[in-house]
Amino acid sequence: MNVMARAQSSPSTSVGAMPPAPSRVFASDNVAGAHPLVLEALVAANADHVLAYGNDPFTFRAEHAFNEVFGRDVRTLFVYGGTGANVLALASVLQPAECVVCTNWSHINVDETGAPEKILGAKLLDLACPDAKLTPDHIRSVAHALGNPHHAQPAVVSLTQPTELGTLYTPAEVRAICDTAHELGMLVHMDAARIGNATAALGASRSALRAFTVDAGVDVLSFGGTKAGNVFGEAVVWFDPRRATRAEYLRKNVTQLHSKMRFISAQYEALLANDLFIELGRRANAAAMGLYEATKQHAVLGLTTPPAVNSLFPTLPDPAKSRLQEWSFFWDWDVAAQQVRWMTAWDVTQDDVAQFAAGVGAALNG
Amino acid sequence: MNVMARAQSSPSTSVGAMPPAPSRVFASDNVAGAHPLVLEALVAANADHVLAYGNDPFTFRAEHAFNEVFGRDVRTLFVYGGTGANVLALASVLQPAECVVCTNWSHINVDETGAPEKILGAKLLDLACPDAKLTPDHIRSVAHALGNPHHAQPAVVSLTQPTELGTLYTPAEVRAICDTAHELGMLVHMDAARIGNATAALGASRSALRAFTVDAGVDVLSFGGTKAGNVFGEAVVWFDPRRATRAEYLRKNVTQLHSKMRFISAQYEALLANDLFIELGRRANAAAMGLYEATKQHAVLGLTTPPAVNSLFPTLPDPAKSRLQEWSFFWDWDVAAQQVRWMTAWDVTQDDVAQFAAGVGAALNG
Amino acid sequence: MNVMARAQSSPSTSVGAMPPAPSRVFASDNVAGAHPLVLEALVAANADHVLAYGNDPFTFRAEHAFNEVFGRDVRTLFVYGGTGANVLALASVLQPAECVVCTNWSHINVDETGAPEKILGAKLLDLACPDAKLTPDHIRSVAHALGNPHHAQPAVVSLTQPTELGTLYTPAEVRAICDTAHELGMLVHMDAARIGNATAALGASRSALRAFTVDAGVDVLSFGGTKAGNVFGEAVVWFDPRRATRAEYLRKNVTQLHSKMRFISAQYEALLANDLFIELGRRANAAAMGLYEATKQHAVLGLTTPPAVNSLFPTLPDPAKSRLQEWSFFWDWDVAAQQVRWMTAWDVTQDDVAQFAAGVGAALNG
Amino acid sequence: MNVMARAQSSPSTSVGAMPPAPSRVFASDNVAGAHPLVLEALVAANADHVLAYGNDPFTFRAEHAFNEVFGRDVRTLFVYGGTGANVLALASVLQPAECVVCTNWSHINVDETGAPEKILGAKLLDLACPDAKLTPDHIRSVAHALGNPHHAQPAVVSLTQPTELGTLYTPAEVRAICDTAHELGMLVHMDAARIGNATAALGASRSALRAFTVDAGVDVLSFGGTKAGNVFGEAVVWFDPRRATRAEYLRKNVTQLHSKMRFISAQYEALLANDLFIELGRRANAAAMGLYEATKQHAVLGLTTPPAVNSLFPTLPDPAKSRLQEWSFFWDWDVAAQQVRWMTAWDVTQDDVAQFAAGVGAALNG
Repeated sequence: MNVMARAQSSPSTSVGAMPPAPSRVFASDNVAGAHPLVLEALVAANADHVLAYGNDPFTFRAEHAFNEVFGRDVRTLFVYGGTGANVLALASVLQPAECVVCTNWSHINVDETGAPEKILGAKLLDLACPDAKLTPDHIRSVAHALGNPHHAQPAVVSLTQPTELGTLYTPAEVRAICDTAHELGMLVHMDAARIGNATAALGASRSALRAFTVDAGVDVLSFGGTKAGNVFGEAVVWFDPRRATRAEYLRKNVTQLHSKMRFISAQYEALLANDLFIELGRRANAAAMGLYEATKQHAVLGLTTPPAVNSLFPTLPDPAKSRLQEWSFFWDWDVAAQQVRWMTAWDVTQDDVAQFAAGVGAALNG
Repeated sequence: MNVMARAQSSPSTSVGAMPPAPSRVFASDNVAGAHPLVLEALVAANADHVLAYGNDPFTFRAEHAFNEVFGRDVRTLFVYGGTGANVLALASVLQPAECVVCTNWSHINVDETGAPEKILGAKLLDLACPDAKLTPDHIRSVAHALGNPHHAQPAVVSLTQPTELGTLYTPAEVRAICDTAHELGMLVHMDAARIGNATAALGASRSALRAFTVDAGVDVLSFGGTKAGNVFGEAVVWFDPRRATRAEYLRKNVTQLHSKMRFISAQYEALLANDLFIELGRRANAAAMGLYEATKQHAVLGLTTPPAVNSLFPTLPDPAKSRLQEWSFFWDWDVAAQQVRWMTAWDVTQDDVAQFAAGVGAALNG
Repeated sequence: MNVMARAQSSPSTSVGAMPPAPSRVFASDNVAGAHPLVLEALVAANADHVLAYGNDPFTFRAEHAFNEVFGRDVRTLFVYGGTGANVLALASVLQPAECVVCTNWSHINVDETGAPEKILGAKLLDLACPDAKLTPDHIRSVAHALGNPHHAQPAVVSLTQPTELGTLYTPAEVRAICDTAHELGMLVHMDAARIGNATAALGASRSALRAFTVDAGVDVLSFGGTKAGNVFGEAVVWFDPRRATRAEYLRKNVTQLHSKMRFISAQYEALLANDLFIELGRRANAAAMGLYEATKQHAVLGLTTPPAVNSLFPTLPDPAKSRLQEWSFFWDWDVAAQQVRWMTAWDVTQDDVAQFAAGVGAALNG
Repeated sequence: MNVMARAQSSPSTSVGAMPPAPSRVFASDNVAGAHPLVLEALVAANADHVLAYGNDPFTFRAEHAFNEVFGRDVRTLFVYGGTGANVLALASVLQPAECVVCTNWSHINVDETGAPEKILGAKLLDLACPDAKLTPDHIRSVAHALGNPHHAQPAVVSLTQPTELGTLYTPAEVRAICDTAHELGMLVHMDAARIGNATAALGASRSALRAFTVDAGVDVLSFGGTKAGNVFGEAVVWFDPRRATRAEYLRKNVTQLHSKMRFISAQYEALLANDLFIELGRRANAAAMGLYEATKQHAVLGLTTPPAVNSLFPTLPDPAKSRLQEWSFFWDWDVAAQQVRWMTAWDVTQDDVAQFAAGVGAALNG
């Protein structure tokens, strides 16, 4: 039985005098459903027969929408899920005996059950980064392996934006990493499963998005869809289409080619229209900021810094922690440090935030 | 550019006096959308927050529905796509240095871009089978490799039901293969991407389904969803849950774990309710049979045998073939043999069939 | 227990009036030891400290010797074994989602326990070739898959010279295959584990060797050592060193980098000096031809064609077969067809041949 | 060009008044050749025809010798090289979606060019261990991943004995790790490429060897041969033969099955006879200790602790470092820390040590 099942089946013991629980939980951003406009687009795509595997007008339009977002002819391939997006992106730019440079916190390293090593057949060179952010010095620190046949060759740097700790790379930080990587002959992948949150936080515009991706020198991007408001479906974007020559074959080779492709494409069309993905990221970020403002007065939580995007990592000792989790579930983050994670989805309201904050207060004072 | 893109961009040359083209095409069964009841279920699942990764009531209900269908406690895992389902199923029952026995026609061998070899790291021992069906003798023919350390060890037999040539294994045929495999220490996987079509053809009931799967000795089943009427989502079913002990980890390890799992589960719940998947298979089969009846009089087509399920493989020389493809697209099957494939989806009507048959007649006589 | 162990432990039943068994057996060419000159070179290399991994004078000289043999600057890497040589050669020229075209008889397909699929992560597209030889038409027959994202992309043709059935490609046949492959954008690998035998049969000179390898357009060559008279050690030769840019890393990546490299290099230096490998191939071939001449009068054996290199595949029914195997062991080849294999090593003498042939006669007439 | 080639081709600049360089270098223990008794055994094995792949009396005897060494019926398989031994050992005890726990210094993690990830398809969970030694707490620290389908499942702990930093695990330390691992359902692999050095340092007897391997609970052992005095060849030992059921197939599956097996087996027979491997380890250790004693007075070297086995890691700034490397080559270890590595092979004499120490003094005082 996994931890999630354990969590859910935990007995509902006495909770004392708690206020009503909010309608939405702060467990993750994948506990939310799809945005109505996205769902409408999916439903509308269900009309006629169209050819499978992306040879359909929905996909042509969605690909075009990505060109518009990035202001150039990019290569976009739609896939099923986030792990698949990362694996496809990395597979497209790795050669045998090469390795991927990432942080010890990175999703590809920690949360994908070894899929990258299995499918890429490649080492992940995970570097200890207390704040989950790589720097040019990190990249330089692995360069000694280049040319040494006893070491897997560092070839791709993988950044997560926002990071797994809810922090952000500025455009200048991304650019410095890309410059260093390129000087050393490496390429740069960005895992942006929460790209809406990052964009909202860094300027909330297409130019803000471009600033920390294509303009900063990123080569291949996992452009998140599911956490952003899709039912399912992720996108991989190559800024130089020549890097994607093998990608179309690789997509099926890594089990990520959907036959009824229109259903992913239609969702992305809706998600990009009017920058909906940025707006939804903004809402989630605002909910997290609201929660921060509403709970920072509890010193025990240690919330000294406002969230950059949509997650908080408060310290929360028992019994308050258990009472709160039973009342409105969220995940432990670091049990030894008594740290938990509160994360907001695109649909969390300020009412939800207020109710949750009230519960936090009640649990702490209970 | 791939063949599908080429197909779609082919110039529309003069087509002569053709009748109006049908609303639906006979290119494949993945050109159709989702069934309304399935789509409704997906939309209805979009209400509240639920935990991700399958710890939700939709998934619990859908898992239970699979137990009901098979009349026992099976283990069911939902995945994104058909290649992923096959890879997960095979990975769960293969050990290193083992290989998979299949036909030269099998989807895993021909149409999955090498995903099985890549992700399983295993050989597919593909046997030449003119009718795309394995027999006990085929299984026995590879047994000489058992115990010889120079040969990959045959460990899993993979059947496709219905086969890639539109033929069927009877329950007795499946049982004979399973018995032989089990005697030799091998397990049996069935790739049933078109399980509704197979079930409709073999009795159109749950007991008919059980007869050619669990009752016949199949160990692990890819239970198709997308072709059956889903937006996306496939299921893998282990009849002995002890064979699935590693499967939950493997699912993410092969990139096939969806976070918003409820959306797949809800579709399956709708697809299994009132045996909808059997009814949709029946419709597609009936459309193919209707097309057979309406075109068999054209001797050139060589349609001497009625279709077992939802595909016909007529011989169709140019210029009739090209005229027809421009008018209502379908795929070439074997160019050298001038053979094409007509395949019906669950939503093809008898009107579509009549219109298509009229076009065939016009093209042949044109 | 594997077949070889079974073979060796078979009880020595009564053998009737058989002549004395020969000192050497006809089971394979890897039952022989190393040639004295090769062994001397290995022993002589054991003098001083030298740097590991090939940065030593023995390796520099051996690499130079390969340049001399092929009349150009090739890239040569030494590895441990034959399967490793093939895997390294193929890995160096394959991209993800590509596949290898070979015959159904090929050693990589049948006799390497799935190592190519496992380590390359790639499909072997094995074509049915009754005489174990590919033709340009075979190559063309798989070209339909090129550009289709549902199929693994044929990228490398792998030939075995001499073939697993003891037949040979002429230089013109190799050239025709290479030309076709190159036209289609594929490369050509030659598995020449028995390169001395092939060279001896096709002209017995360096120019003869070049004619069926580099001059014919082969891109990468597994240049056999162990069967040719080494203790251990194989070589991989890239005729265009630019194709080998990743090979040095791949060698360790596939577990084939020896630290005390001098011991392989010194053996190859001896094997190439004065074309010793050709002379040893010639001897083995002559022994096989001698055996053919000495046994072809037994019609039951079906030896209607003289051997091209060092193997014969006679038909030999029981009880004669079993009597002979107990007297002087050799392997079954195709049990159903009552076919066995007699194979000669470099050290088999005409006395051995005469004694073995006498035994054959006795067993058949016994 | 790799670092070793660069090293060797470095220009010989003026070296001042250095004493004569020793005959043997302190670059590594793989710069030495084979021990005369081992080489004699290899040469003696070159007599007759024997069956290939281990069905020969040399291999039967060597397998028996391993049973004698460990005092029980173990399963021993001979392979070509050290990376291959580790990969085979790990492959035999890993399931898909599992991972290997090791230190950040481990040879499998750093020095095998990604072969484990590539061939196992598994993550190496490398833990930061300043002294290159794992503890039970390290093992417990990864146990949180067990049962969580988002994480690769820790299944095998891999220890290196002696470690890559020249330190040792005591038998009690190994036992504590094994007990913890087994409690958590994990197995333990020991990479003992320098097993002779470890055994010599921990008691210099078979019982000493058993104390830190089989008696301590190790499940599978890479029993080094090449560094111990072989020409080539390593051994993998399973203490419970039931864990090796798939190993024989895996050996060829990972390219590590030698056809002329007798040549590896004969060397091991010589290496185990009269505990030669322990004696050679003792000599190398003694040489390192001698070098320590002869150089520790140079404070700049920072040699405050005598070596546990056969390596020293002195601090050596330029220009002394470069002068010494040009005079008698050795490798940099940590350039940033100005640290180098001196390592002794089995054949280094006290004269070599004295001469090298004299050179060190001259370079430091020059």
